[in-house]
Amino acid sequence: MIDIRDRVRNAALHGKIVSAEEAAAIIKPGMNIGTSGFTPAGYPKAVPLALAERMKKENFQVNLWTGASVGKELDGAWAEANGIARRLPYQTNEAIRKQINNGKIAYTDLHLSHVAQMSRYGFLGGKVNVAIVEACAITEDGNIIPTTSLGNSPSFVKDADIVIVEVNTSQPMELEGMHDVYIPQDPPCRQPIPLTKPDDRIGTPYIPCGVDKITYIVPCDLPDAVRPLAAIDDDARAMSAHLIDFLNNEIKQGRMPKNLLPLQSGVGSVANAVVCGLVNSPYENLSVFTEVIQDGMFDLIDAGKLTFASGTSLTPSPEGLQRFYDNIGEYRKKIVLRPQEIANSPELARRLGIIAMNTAIEFDIFGHVNSTHIMGSKMMNGIGGSGDFARNGYLTFFFSNSIAKKGAISSIVPMCSHIDHTEHDVDVFITERGVADVRGLSPKERARVIIKHCAHPDYQPLLTDYLERAEKATGFVHTPHLMDEALSWHSRFIQTGTMKK
Amino acid sequence: MIDIRDRVRNAALHGKIVSAEEAAAIIKPGMNIGTSGFTPAGYPKAVPLALAERMKKENFQVNLWTGASVGKELDGAWAEANGIARRLPYQTNEAIRKQINNGKIAYTDLHLSHVAQMSRYGFLGGKVNVAIVEACAITEDGNIIPTTSLGNSPSFVKDADIVIVEVNTSQPMELEGMHDVYIPQDPPCRQPIPLTKPDDRIGTPYIPCGVDKITYIVPCDLPDAVRPLAAIDDDARAMSAHLIDFLNNEIKQGRMPKNLLPLQSGVGSVANAVVCGLVNSPYENLSVFTEVIQDGMFDLIDAGKLTFASGTSLTPSPEGLQRFYDNIGEYRKKIVLRPQEIANSPELARRLGIIAMNTAIEFDIFGHVNSTHIMGSKMMNGIGGSGDFARNGYLTFFFSNSIAKKGAISSIVPMCSHIDHTEHDVDVFITERGVADVRGLSPKERARVIIKHCAHPDYQPLLTDYLERAEKATGFVHTPHLMDEALSWHSRFIQTGTMKK
Repeated sequence: MIDIRDRVRNAALHGKIVSAEEAAAIIKPGMNIGTSGFTPAGYPKAVPLALAERMKKENFQVNLWTGASVGKELDGAWAEANGIARRLPYQTNEAIRKQINNGKIAYTDLHLSHVAQMSRYGFLGGKVNVAIVEACAITEDGNIIPTTSLGNSPSFVKDADIVIVEVNTSQPMELEGMHDVYIPQDPPCRQPIPLTKPDDRIGTPYIPCGVDKITYIVPCDLPDAVRPLAAIDDDARAMSAHLIDFLNNEIKQGRMPKNLLPLQSGVGSVANAVVCGLVNSPYENLSVFTEVIQDGMFDLIDAGKLTFASGTSLTPSPEGLQRFYDNIGEYRKKIVLRPQEIANSPELARRLGIIAMNTAIEFDIFGHVNSTHIMGSKMMNGIGGSGDFARNGYLTFFFSNSIAKKGAISSIVPMCSHIDHTEHDVDVFITERGVADVRGLSPKERARVIIKHCAHPDYQPLLTDYLERAEKATGFVHTPHLMDEALSWHSRFIQTGTMKK
Repeated sequence: MIDIRDRVRNAALHGKIVSAEEAAAIIKPGMNIGTSGFTPAGYPKAVPLALAERMKKENFQVNLWTGASVGKELDGAWAEANGIARRLPYQTNEAIRKQINNGKIAYTDLHLSHVAQMSRYGFLGGKVNVAIVEACAITEDGNIIPTTSLGNSPSFVKDADIVIVEVNTSQPMELEGMHDVYIPQDPPCRQPIPLTKPDDRIGTPYIPCGVDKITYIVPCDLPDAVRPLAAIDDDARAMSAHLIDFLNNEIKQGRMPKNLLPLQSGVGSVANAVVCGLVNSPYENLSVFTEVIQDGMFDLIDAGKLTFASGTSLTPSPEGLQRFYDNIGEYRKKIVLRPQEIANSPELARRLGIIAMNTAIEFDIFGHVNSTHIMGSKMMNGIGGSGDFARNGYLTFFFSNSIAKKGAISSIVPMCSHIDHTEHDVDVFITERGVADVRGLSPKERARVIIKHCAHPDYQPLLTDYLERAEKATGFVHTPHLMDEALSWHSRFIQTGTMKK
């Protein structure tokens, strides 16, 4: 068993080591709690579980600010204890989602690159009061060595009056050195972020904190509750093949370097499958500049295709995590974790010219994208970093299966029931049916390309019928819509269980 | 009368001086024509008028790429000659708008910061074939001194095979030195844009071109067809007063420096009125980092309130233009014009921390904004730079009158009929009724604040009724909408001429 004192390198700090319960006792109702964590990676576990016990007994609510989603010991335990008044900026937990959609939790769904600065600016309802951050170790100077994610931890630590560090002995010390912490100054003093390549190092390998700023240190040995990835199915394989065909042509036309540009890929199974498809592609010397490093990136590294990956979080499957630990000495040379303010920076996405690849819940014939809501009303997860990347990438893709619920839902609709990315932000749509390249097109042109190449054959005639009737009714106006019918597919699904007539 | 040869400083170029008709003869049907101009400022006039004559005779169409809107001698003349197949990225001309909305012109409505790079990348349907650029003069080295705007001229000149320079002798030579031309490299070689203050100079005072690259030089003496601004009315004055109250409180709360942060203000009368309101504000040492420099900025300079203004275009009213010319020696010390790729850069908007102030056609109770479409279908002008600034500003405002058409239209609706800026992108809404500060709020919270502070009393009960019924019907879901009714206000207006029941 590891003695936590070996990981707290300044003996003067040993006196601050307390139990999770003691640390949790400092938290007061209504406080803004900023934690580490981005996906079920690198989030605090012991103090949140202890606080959940208090929440159950004391009818106790706080506001939870994180990097993105976090694991069940935090999101799940607090939601089940009815302990969250406000949640931001992203979530994927079932218990939280339920309370967001029944009015119990106020959820603020933010661009992930905006969170740290909005927190520093005081725009989120006061400042962060308490930072709870998972660490591998604390340095002699009281600085924090993070674990499997960085998220917004550096800004939360900087701003909070109370800093609780969970030293997690299940996290390997080889993580030390994999982080690059840069916190921009705020306007009017902000300088250019001095990064021009995915592997540039511009900051410190630790979160600056200092001995005096640490309030409590809590031992923890619970591992990240990583989750399995869905098996790669035929539809995902088809999307990946369409992507590679498309990129091959871009190279041929002189619009893309042969080793592509830095890849960004969203979280989840489809995104992972698309990345996996690159293992058998002709591309060499690939680089990644993204949020989340998933199993597919390890495949690319092992295949000798990927020279460097920059992210804010390591989010492998359970098997992927084991694989990472087994070969951490090699992987750590090719991976860096950054604060999400840097990983998702619009400045950097545009400078590096990333290839932005994200998934949509639905998109419409005119090229708008819904990333967040089911049937216009129910929150699924949140926008995450998709907007940061989609708006600013060199080339922006959105992926979706053409249908859902065995065909009862068409992912391509006349009008999106909620819009997170507009017609101005997307270059290419890909479904298992094909590729719609909408660059430079007008809305009516986009509609024909999207219906032809992306929609499911069951829905193509219905979409064309809507478009043609709307064109005639409006006199071929710029974006022909029938206000009476634009959302009728969603209405029909809600009433009958299918979008089909 | 000015001899154009005095303004073409290399005598070897005098042989390239031709008539507008001769220059226009080089243009072939289907070509991509990239011109100078951003608002009715700094656009070519003589060659477009000559080409319009050819268009009328020859059933001749081209694709027109500009900075933004341009004057009647280009947009108007070509549209009236049925000479435009595709138009991008923005327009305000009546003849063009009509053809966009009857299917004759394919219009590609783009973020203004995206245009130059998409053109260089070859994403807009081939490369630009011909650049037509208005100039004050041509230097000894064949470089181009621009006039009252910069727009996308530097990239169009760089990429085009044919470069036609219109030397406009109505433009005063004192404009020389007011420009700062910086063209970023493209990925993977792009470097940080080295600008950290609105008055930094990072490029050249001319558009790099070179003697050999110039195909033709054409004399012109037609002035910019600048347009009058609407008189400032009580509603605009009220919005301006709300803005100042709000900013005063931000300063008091420590969330804003006393001299504010660089101001960005959209084009048009409301935006101009809001800026004018700052003349009588307590703020000193203001700066501007925006697209368009309008009359209000001159008022601020004259009042000693504004130390520096950076834009891409000078767009005063006719009186404002005269005022600018009369005192150009002083104004030129405090104004710089940049390419719109720099003026509208997300990197710079975020670094400088601009205060983004733009106008909406409508916004909805959950905080989405429609900047472009009337009743969901008909294109008004375009998104322009509003998205570049709104997404990336320190503090993002949208302004609108609470009603239009004498109350038949509510500018606050249950759901926008078109969305250009999403709930993730706006901090504060202002109408003549008041201020809705939606920072950090959930959709249901936003709805109550927007209805209470921004909606017109005639529509407040209807909006509240929709919200409450949607909440009940959906079980207080995250974004309660009734798919059957969300767009019914627009349907009703189309059918009955009013949104009122």
